[in-house]
Amino acid sequence: MEAELIAWLKEHAPREPFVDLGIGDDAAVLAGGSCCVVAVDALAEGTHFSLDQAQPRQVGHKALAVNLSDLAAMAARPRAAVVGLTLPRRRSLQLAIELFEGMLPLARRHGVAIVGGDTNTWSGSLVISVTLLGETTGRGPLTRSGARPGDQIFVTGRLGGSGFGWHLRFEPRICEALMLHSSYLLRAGIDISDGLAIDLQRMAKASGCGAEIEIGQIPLSDAAHQAASQSGRDAVHHALADGEDFELLLAVDPETAARIAGDHPLEIPLTRIGQFTSSPQSTRIEPDGRRRPLQPMGYLHGQER
Amino acid sequence: MEAELIAWLKEHAPREPFVDLGIGDDAAVLAGGSCCVVAVDALAEGTHFSLDQAQPRQVGHKALAVNLSDLAAMAARPRAAVVGLTLPRRRSLQLAIELFEGMLPLARRHGVAIVGGDTNTWSGSLVISVTLLGETTGRGPLTRSGARPGDQIFVTGRLGGSGFGWHLRFEPRICEALMLHSSYLLRAGIDISDGLAIDLQRMAKASGCGAEIEIGQIPLSDAAHQAASQSGRDAVHHALADGEDFELLLAVDPETAARIAGDHPLEIPLTRIGQFTSSPQSTRIEPDGRRRPLQPMGYLHGQER
Repeated sequence: MEAELIAWLKEHAPREPFVDLGIGDDAAVLAGGSCCVVAVDALAEGTHFSLDQAQPRQVGHKALAVNLSDLAAMAARPRAAVVGLTLPRRRSLQLAIELFEGMLPLARRHGVAIVGGDTNTWSGSLVISVTLLGETTGRGPLTRSGARPGDQIFVTGRLGGSGFGWHLRFEPRICEALMLHSSYLLRAGIDISDGLAIDLQRMAKASGCGAEIEIGQIPLSDAAHQAASQSGRDAVHHALADGEDFELLLAVDPETAARIAGDHPLEIPLTRIGQFTSSPQSTRIEPDGRRRPLQPMGYLHGQER
Repeated sequence: MEAELIAWLKEHAPREPFVDLGIGDDAAVLAGGSCCVVAVDALAEGTHFSLDQAQPRQVGHKALAVNLSDLAAMAARPRAAVVGLTLPRRRSLQLAIELFEGMLPLARRHGVAIVGGDTNTWSGSLVISVTLLGETTGRGPLTRSGARPGDQIFVTGRLGGSGFGWHLRFEPRICEALMLHSSYLLRAGIDISDGLAIDLQRMAKASGCGAEIEIGQIPLSDAAHQAASQSGRDAVHHALADGEDFELLLAVDPETAARIAGDHPLEIPLTRIGQFTSSPQSTRIEPDGRRRPLQPMGYLHGQER
C-alpha cells in the first residue's frame, strides 16, 4: 500500500527546489542553510477529531495546520514536512490519499514540501503524526520565554468556540507572524492550542512573569457566543478555555505596542488584551475593574478539562 | 501529563551544544550548518511490537533505532529527534518514561538530542512516532538509486530470525555506515527493514538494474536456524524474507569490492552476496549453480506476507 501512496504523492506533491532528495528514499535531504526548526504533533481519532464528524481532508488539513501554527509561534518559515500515518486497515489507501488531499493545498500555500513519511495499517483507529521543519528568519526564533514585566499582550483573530468547525479549517498565522516579526520587535510568542488562559500562563511562566488580562478586551468569535448559548456559560469562558483557536499571543514592549495600535498592520484583528507583570500570579481584570486570579483552564487532550 | 514528562525529559535527556532551543517551546531550533536529513517511522502496538512480549524500554529503543537505521542507510550523521507519543490512558506517564528510558541510552551513544515531541492519551493502543534529523557528511548522502550493473552487493552482519529478539535490541549501523562511506566509494545503500529479497529489489529498481544473489553466500544468523527449526522452511528463507534485520545492503564497484574484501574494515561481518546486473530481473543463484527468479518476499507491515 505504501508504494501506491508514494506513487500518488510523487504525482500530487509539488516539487520544491530546496529539496535535494524527497519522497522515495530512506530519508529526505534538504539543502543546507540557516537554522533548522522542527515541530511535531500527533493527532489521534477520538481525541483530536472524529471521522464521524470530520472529513478526512479536514483531518489532513488540521494535522499539518497545527504544526504550521507551532512554527508561526516561533516566527519561523516552514519548509518541509514528514508524515507518519497509522491507519485502520479498511480502505486505508483511500483514507491516506484523502488525508494528503487535505494537507497539500495548505502545504502549497505556505511553501511546504512533503518530503517523506511512514505509513502502516493496524487494527486500531487513525493516528496521524506530522513533523514540520522550517528555518528562522534573520531575526532569529520567537520564543515563549522573552516577555518582560510591562510588555503588552496582543492576540490575533477572535477566540472561542473552535469546536464549531474552526479547529478543522483554521488558517495558521504564518504570514502574520513573519510580517510582524520583520516589522516590529516581538519579545515573545505562543500559539493558542490549549486555551488562552493556560497558554498565556505558560508564556508568563516561561518568561518568569505574571500576566493580567483585561476580560473586556478579549476579541470574541461568533462561535464563542454560539457555544455560550448552548453551554449556559458566558462567551468569555469559551474564549479563555476552549482552546484550538490557533491564534497567536504576542508580547511587545509598550512603545512597540503603541506603534502596532496605530499601524493596524494585519487584515485580521490584532488586539491588545493585557500586559505581563512582575508578580508571579496571573490575574483577570473584569470590565468593572474587579481583579480575580486567572484560573489555568484550558483543553488538555486526553484529560478532563 | 505532558508537563511532567517534559520535566522528566529535561532532567534525563542530555544537552547537546548544537541545539539552540530544545524541549519546552513550540518547536526546537537546531544550529544551522550542513544538509538536514530527516527520517520518520511510526510503530504501532500489535503491528511492530506487542507490549505482552516486549518491555516498553525495548519498544523505545526500537522506535529510535529504526530511524537511526534509515540514517545509516543514507550514511548520514544523526543529530536530533522528536517523538510523537499516542498513549493508552492507563499508566500513561510511566509508560512514556519507560519508552524514553529505552531511547536515551541509544540516543547518547549516537550523539542524538531529543529536542521535542508531542504526547497525548487516547482510548486506543500505543503508537510511537519518531522523526530523526541528521546531516550528511562531506561525501553527501548515500542513496538507494546509485547502483550500476556490475556493482558488487555487500551486507553487514547476519540475517534472519529477527523475531527472536533482534528486532527489539539491534544496534543500528550508523558507525559502520559513516566509516565505510568515508573510506570507500559507496555507490548505493539501503537498510534491510522488510527483508533482504524485497529491499534488494527496491534498491535494484531505484537504480534501474537487476540483481543476482548467491544464496550460499548469505550470512545466516543463529536465529535464522532457530526460526527454520520451528517453521520447517530453511534458514535461507528466513534470511530472505523475515525482515527487521536492520543491516545494510551496499553497492560498490568491483575494484572497491576487492579492496573491502582485503581490508576487513568492520568488526562485524561484511559479506559479498552478489552483484547488480543490467537485466531488469532479479535472480537467485543456488549453491549448485541453478538460477531461479528471486521472489520479492518480505515483511509488509499490516499486510499478509
